[in-house]
Amino acid sequence: MNDLSALDCIRVVLSRPSHPGNIGAAARAMKTMGLSRLWLVSPASFPDPVAEARASGAGDVLAGARVTDSLQEALSGTVLAAALTARRRDLSLARLHPRTAAAELVQWAQGARAEVALVFGNEASGLSNEELGLCTLPVTIPANPAYPSLNLGAAVQLMCYELRLAAMGQGGSTFPVEPLPELATHEEIEHFFTHLESGIVESGFLDPAKPRRLMPRLRRLFGRVRLEKEEIAILRGILSSFDAGMKNSQQKQ
Amino acid sequence: MNDLSALDCIRVVLSRPSHPGNIGAAARAMKTMGLSRLWLVSPASFPDPVAEARASGAGDVLAGARVTDSLQEALSGTVLAAALTARRRDLSLARLHPRTAAAELVQWAQGARAEVALVFGNEASGLSNEELGLCTLPVTIPANPAYPSLNLGAAVQLMCYELRLAAMGQGGSTFPVEPLPELATHEEIEHFFTHLESGIVESGFLDPAKPRRLMPRLRRLFGRVRLEKEEIAILRGILSSFDAGMKNSQQKQ
Repeated sequence: MNDLSALDCIRVVLSRPSHPGNIGAAARAMKTMGLSRLWLVSPASFPDPVAEARASGAGDVLAGARVTDSLQEALSGTVLAAALTARRRDLSLARLHPRTAAAELVQWAQGARAEVALVFGNEASGLSNEELGLCTLPVTIPANPAYPSLNLGAAVQLMCYELRLAAMGQGGSTFPVEPLPELATHEEIEHFFTHLESGIVESGFLDPAKPRRLMPRLRRLFGRVRLEKEEIAILRGILSSFDAGMKNSQQKQ
Repeated sequence: MNDLSALDCIRVVLSRPSHPGNIGAAARAMKTMGLSRLWLVSPASFPDPVAEARASGAGDVLAGARVTDSLQEALSGTVLAAALTARRRDLSLARLHPRTAAAELVQWAQGARAEVALVFGNEASGLSNEELGLCTLPVTIPANPAYPSLNLGAAVQLMCYELRLAAMGQGGSTFPVEPLPELATHEEIEHFFTHLESGIVESGFLDPAKPRRLMPRLRRLFGRVRLEKEEIAILRGILSSFDAGMKNSQQKQ
């Protein structure tokens, strides 16, 4: 690895940022590390002169920012999304170290020639469980347990630094990988989950009135895999074959 | 190494900071990484409500800051000083990578039971040649050559992060993981595959006469996950619900 062009394939997504100053700080942090793709999900105020002031020489990153209404939209077309989270969740995955996550994001950005995303939540509330559920890699910055509250711009700086080091091959943890398979996109994976959900509602396994934590658990399971395009095709083929079997049953009844 | 008390022996020195907001941001960045000793050389304005606002929950670091008139004074009693510099100087030493510098600072802080310093210059002009001359280790953050201008608070965040990792002995990339989930046994996983195979033969998706590479592909997919006991139970529950739906269908035929 030593291919800074990978940095052009990495989206930094800020979900529901409250303070325009932090948007500017994030843009500046990104540019100092060679990243440029900023996505903003429902920012409280954008554009905003405070953001422009804090962006300093990174006005171009700010000007090129894409604004969306949902995290779903900001992730469209990406093959992998890492999410910054400080908090323990019920269904906690082993959370990744920033360096490990950066290596993985850069690896896919380089190998799959596809976009990947790094997602940051709201300054006060972080990412919602629903937002976290859309992302594959939970990342936690090792911080002082007594005060783990990094400023949003500072967290973006730190992660972009690790991404740059990873792209420069200075991350430390390198692992040689064979020719990479083509990963499924965010949309393809979401369509699979929709299909799976409707299938198990149909079969009676999932009661929509009492969903328990079934879909989050299944998301967590498949979220660990880095599903490939062909695998999604197989899984959906299987679901369709079950659907057909069960529909057949209903028509006869 | 794994001795966070080393962080108590590291001074962060800001020389001639112009913007009180950056002083506050530095204090916050320090505290998130477990550092507390802030020294200010001739700050333009201190104390200042803007610094307090930006420090957020790190008001204690700000309140404990020592203010001096000269860098000499701020370095008194230290055994080693690293200086952040973006620029090449005529008499440039080989500049250290942040990670290398952090390891060295922490090593001395732990070993010599003495204080060490990490020195940051003015936002616009950096450190003067005279100031640099007082420091032993020049450090340069690997940044975008087209825009290497990190915000002061962001640079402090990044360096304090490297110091914390060094003190934790995590110059590498492992992150301690919470209590691990209970993984499924080999037999449980084999039973799942048997169940899956019979299900998709039943549904018609897998033709035993022409199996292609379907089961090996599914084994490869689920083999990447480290399936947990509870997940196996869910997957087998789903398969059973599909089985029941399809059996129902056949009985009616």
